[in-house]
Amino acid sequence: MSKKVLIIGAVALGPKVACRLRRLDPEAEITLIDRDNLISYGGCGIPYYVGGDISDIEELYSTTSHAVRDAAFFENCKGVKVLTRVEAREIKRREKQVRVCHLDTGEEELLSYDKLVLATGARAVRPPFPGVDLPGVFTVSDLHDAETIKSLMAKGSVGKVAVIGAGAIGLEITEAMTDLWGIETTLIEMEDQVMPTLLGKCIARVAAKEMEKHGVDLLLEARVHEISRIEPTGKLLVNTSKRALEVDMVILAAGVRPNTSLARDAGLSIGRSGGISVDRRMRTSDPDIYAGGDCVEVRNLISGENMLMALGSLANRQGRIIATNISGGQSHFKGTVGTFCIKIFDLGVSKAGLTYRQAKETGFDPVYAVVAQADHAHFYPSSELIYISLLADKKSRKILGIEAAGKNGVAVKARVDTVAVLLQHGLDVDEVCCLETAYAPPYASAMDVINNAGNVLDNILAGFDRPIDAADFLNEFAHHKTRVLDIRGEKEAAPFKEKYGESWLNIPHEQLRRRVGDIPADEPFFLLCDTGPRAYETQIFLSSKGITHTRLIQGGFAMIRATDPEFI
Amino acid sequence: MSKKVLIIGAVALGPKVACRLRRLDPEAEITLIDRDNLISYGGCGIPYYVGGDISDIEELYSTTSHAVRDAAFFENCKGVKVLTRVEAREIKRREKQVRVCHLDTGEEELLSYDKLVLATGARAVRPPFPGVDLPGVFTVSDLHDAETIKSLMAKGSVGKVAVIGAGAIGLEITEAMTDLWGIETTLIEMEDQVMPTLLGKCIARVAAKEMEKHGVDLLLEARVHEISRIEPTGKLLVNTSKRALEVDMVILAAGVRPNTSLARDAGLSIGRSGGISVDRRMRTSDPDIYAGGDCVEVRNLISGENMLMALGSLANRQGRIIATNISGGQSHFKGTVGTFCIKIFDLGVSKAGLTYRQAKETGFDPVYAVVAQADHAHFYPSSELIYISLLADKKSRKILGIEAAGKNGVAVKARVDTVAVLLQHGLDVDEVCCLETAYAPPYASAMDVINNAGNVLDNILAGFDRPIDAADFLNEFAHHKTRVLDIRGEKEAAPFKEKYGESWLNIPHEQLRRRVGDIPADEPFFLLCDTGPRAYETQIFLSSKGITHTRLIQGGFAMIRATDPEFI
Repeated sequence: MSKKVLIIGAVALGPKVACRLRRLDPEAEITLIDRDNLISYGGCGIPYYVGGDISDIEELYSTTSHAVRDAAFFENCKGVKVLTRVEAREIKRREKQVRVCHLDTGEEELLSYDKLVLATGARAVRPPFPGVDLPGVFTVSDLHDAETIKSLMAKGSVGKVAVIGAGAIGLEITEAMTDLWGIETTLIEMEDQVMPTLLGKCIARVAAKEMEKHGVDLLLEARVHEISRIEPTGKLLVNTSKRALEVDMVILAAGVRPNTSLARDAGLSIGRSGGISVDRRMRTSDPDIYAGGDCVEVRNLISGENMLMALGSLANRQGRIIATNISGGQSHFKGTVGTFCIKIFDLGVSKAGLTYRQAKETGFDPVYAVVAQADHAHFYPSSELIYISLLADKKSRKILGIEAAGKNGVAVKARVDTVAVLLQHGLDVDEVCCLETAYAPPYASAMDVINNAGNVLDNILAGFDRPIDAADFLNEFAHHKTRVLDIRGEKEAAPFKEKYGESWLNIPHEQLRRRVGDIPADEPFFLLCDTGPRAYETQIFLSSKGITHTRLIQGGFAMIRATDPEFI
Repeated sequence: MSKKVLIIGAVALGPKVACRLRRLDPEAEITLIDRDNLISYGGCGIPYYVGGDISDIEELYSTTSHAVRDAAFFENCKGVKVLTRVEAREIKRREKQVRVCHLDTGEEELLSYDKLVLATGARAVRPPFPGVDLPGVFTVSDLHDAETIKSLMAKGSVGKVAVIGAGAIGLEITEAMTDLWGIETTLIEMEDQVMPTLLGKCIARVAAKEMEKHGVDLLLEARVHEISRIEPTGKLLVNTSKRALEVDMVILAAGVRPNTSLARDAGLSIGRSGGISVDRRMRTSDPDIYAGGDCVEVRNLISGENMLMALGSLANRQGRIIATNISGGQSHFKGTVGTFCIKIFDLGVSKAGLTYRQAKETGFDPVYAVVAQADHAHFYPSSELIYISLLADKKSRKILGIEAAGKNGVAVKARVDTVAVLLQHGLDVDEVCCLETAYAPPYASAMDVINNAGNVLDNILAGFDRPIDAADFLNEFAHHKTRVLDIRGEKEAAPFKEKYGESWLNIPHEQLRRRVGDIPADEPFFLLCDTGPRAYETQIFLSSKGITHTRLIQGGFAMIRATDPEFI
C-alpha cells in the first residue's frame, strides 16, 4: 500500500518536501494543504515587488520557465495533490489524522496520514502597543499584504511612512519605499543600531550610514508608545520615546514568531526559543511527524544553543532532508551558522556566526579585527572597498563570526560564504589566514581581503597589533584629548591639521623613520593611515623605539568615513 | 647580534617575507636582491596592462596609496635594504654566503646570511621548435616584455598575432590583444581543449566558445612545427600541423618552469615535478634556506602528489609563513587545492581541485554533475546563468573538484571558493548539498546553484539520475539515431522538430503525465528541458512507468547552447 504523506503549509518547505518525495517515491500519496490561495512563492521577494524591481506579483510564484505554481501545476507537473484555502485545525496523533477546514465553505474534513509534515512557517509579530490594528498599519507577511501596500503607494496616497523595527525585513521594506516611490520613510528601532541581532556595531554603522545617505530618517533607541489616528485627515500619529511622527502608513517589521499552536495543541515538544523542537532528521517528538522551515528551532553550530532562524534557504535544505528521510533514506540537518546577506541600497551586507555581543553572552572571550580593502587587485580598474569584521575566541582561536559590507555585494557575500564554511566545521583563525580562494586581478587580490582579515586578527591575538575600532575612536576622540598621529600624505592630512591643530600630528609614512624624534615617547596616540596596514607597521616600528602607548585605528580613514561620512 | 636574512627575488614572495619579517623582528638585517630593476610588481596584472585596462605600468608596482615600490620605498617605509640589478650566482652553503654579481658593473660580491630565502620564481618555457628566438617572438614573463609588446601594438604595426599555448596566460594575453587592440589573434593549442591542465571538457568548451564569440581564431589539436621569417616583409610564418599562419607577432605562452638552477647547484633537493622541495614550514633540504612561490613544488591536498602551482596568491600566503618561521614562530603551509579563476572577455571561469582526467589518473573513480542555474533568485531582475561541473569519487563520495563559468564572474568565483574550502578539508558531497551560504534574492537563490550541484551529484551517485553531458550528447546525437524527448514548450521545440523530424519528440512537461502512452517504452531517449531539473523529474517518472532507457542532458538546453551556440 502506498504511503500517505500530508504536508501542512505550501510556501517554501512544503512544496520542496512534496516534489523531492515524489521523485524518490513515485507511489506515495502526497497531499499539500494551505489556508492561502497563493502558494509556493518566494516570500523573500516581497520587498522587491513592493519596491518595483519585480513588476508582476506572478513572478514570485512562477518557475524559471514561467509556469505559474498553482494547484494545477502541482497536479500535472509534479504529481502532487494541493488543497488551497484549507486550514489545519487539529492533529489527532493517535488516529493519525488531521482535522481541516475548507475556508470557503466552512466544511470540515479528516485527512489521514502515515507521515505528517509541519511547514506552518512564522507570522509577523504585532508589538504590544496600542494602535497596531488601526487601518493603515500593515505587516509584510504574505503576498496579500504586499499587494495592498503596493496598490496604496501606486495610487499616490502615501507620502510618509514609519517602519517599526530595523531588522532585515524593516531595512528591505524601507529601501523599497524610499528608492522607487520616493516616500519619506522613518525607520524606528528600539536598540542603538540597525540589525541588532545580526550585526555588531562596526558593520551596523556602515549599514546605517548607507540608509541615511539615501534619505532614510533613522530613529535609533526609540520606543514606540502608541499609534493613533488623526481626524479628520485619517493620518497616523506614531508616538515614540524620542519624537512623534505624522505618517500615512505604518509598517510593522518587529520580527516574526513561529506558528506552533497546531504542534503545541498536539502535545509536540516546543523548544525554549519558541520553535518546534526537531532532531537531526527533522522529526518532532512524534516520529511520524516532521517539521521544518520557519516554525522549528535549529541548532546554532557555534554557540551550541537552539535558535530561531527564519530563512528560505534553510527551509529548502531542510525540505530536501525531510523528503529523503520519509522515503526511507538517512539525511541530517546539523544546524546553522546563521549565514545571511542583504542588499541595502548600493551596499551589500553579509554575516555568519555570532556577533561580539552574542559571543560574550555565550561565554566566549571574543576578539575582533576590522579591515578595509579593495574587492580586487588595486591596480585593476573600478575596485570597491570591502569592510570586514572578523571575530574569534581569544583562547581557542576558533572563528566565531564574520560580518562584511561593501558596494560589490556579490564579492561581500563571497568572502562571508567561505568563512561560513569554516564556521560550519569549527576551524580557527589560521585557516582564514591561509584560506585558498581563487585569485585573478579582476576578482580578488593576491593577498585577499579575507586573508588579511585573518592576518590582522592573528596579529591582534599575538599581541602585535593593539587596535581601536573606528566607532570607538570617534567617540574617544570627541571626548578626550588623545592625539592622532596621521601618517597619510600632507595633502590628505591638511584639513584635519587645520581643524584640530595640536591634536592632529602628521608625519607621512615615508618620513617616519627619520622623524621618529618628533614623537613624544610617553604620550598616547591614535595611529591613522588609509586602511590600516601602514598604521600597523608604524605601531610596530614605534614600539621598537619605545613609543608604546599607541592604538591603531582599524580600517583606517576608510573605516572612519564609512562610520561617519561627516567626520573632519 | 641581529639576524642576517638574505632574500633572492623581489617580485611577490620576496617582498612579502621581507616586510612581514621586519614587523616581527625590528632588529633583523634584511636584504632583498633582484637582477631586475623593477621589483615588487603585480605580475598577474601584465595582461591588463597590455590590454589597456591598466594604462600606466607604474600602477603595477605602486601601493594602494600610490607610492612607487622601488628600493627607496623599501628603505624608507619598510626598513628593508633592496639591491636591484644584482644577480645571485652561487650559494656557498658551508660559508652561509651567496656570491652575487652587480649586473651594471660586472662586479662580484659575497653576501652572508643566517637565513636565506629563495624566491627565484619561474620563467616562460621556450618550446623546442625552430624559430622561437626570432625577432617578433615574445614571452610575457616580466614588465619589460609587457612594455615592448604594448609599444609595438600602440605603433599600429601589429595586425595579426599567433599566441602559442591556451593555458591561463595564453587566454589572458589573447583577450588583451583582441579586445582593445582589435588584433586578429589565433590561439594555438596542442591539446583538444583550452586550459587542458585546469579544466575538464565541459567548462573548457564554454570558455572556448566565449573566445570564438569575440573573434578569436582558436586552433586546437595543432602542433607548431616551426616559426620562420618571411622576407622582405619581415612577417612571421607559423607552421602548424593544421595550417600555416602569417602573423606580425608571436607570443609564446607554453607554460612556465621554476627557476631552480641556483638551488640545484647548491645541492638542495629538487622534487619530481621540477620545483624546489620544501617541508610544511617552507624549508628546503637545508634548514637555513627557505624557498617559496613559483620556484617550489607544493602538495596537492586532493591527490597527495606534489605539483607546481605558479600563483601570486599562494606566493603571498607562503611569504607570510616563511617570515613567521624565520622569526621563531611556527607556521605551516599544508598544500593547495589549486583554486584558480580567470576572466575571459565577458565570462568568469573558476576551478578548484582536480579535473576528471586528473582524478582518473590519480586512481579515483570520478563521477561528475553539470548544472546550469541563475546566479540569483530567478524572480529578481538581471540574473546570469552559472554553469557548474562538480566532481566526486564514486566510492568515498569525497569531493574531488569543481569548475564553474558564467557572466557574473564574482558570483562564479564565490561558488568555487566555498567548495575550495570543503576540498581543503577533505569533505564529501553531502556537505555541498547542505552548504550554508548567504541568501538574499539579489545575490543568491534559496536553493542555490552550488547546493543544486551537490544535489544533482548526490542523485547521480544514488543512481536516480542517469545523465549525459552536453558535449557527449552533441557528439552522439550527430552520429547516432537516438531520439530526443524535448519536454520544453511547443514554441521552444518547434525549430528542432522541423529540422530533426521524427528524431525530435516534443511533449511539454505539463502534458507528460497524460501522454506517457505516446512514448515507446523500449526505445532509448535523450531527455531535454531548459536547464535539467524537469528532465530529471521526467526520467524518474518515466522509469516508474517502465521507460528506463533514458539519459538526461545535464544543464539542459542552456548547457547545449553554451557548448555549441550554433546547435539547432
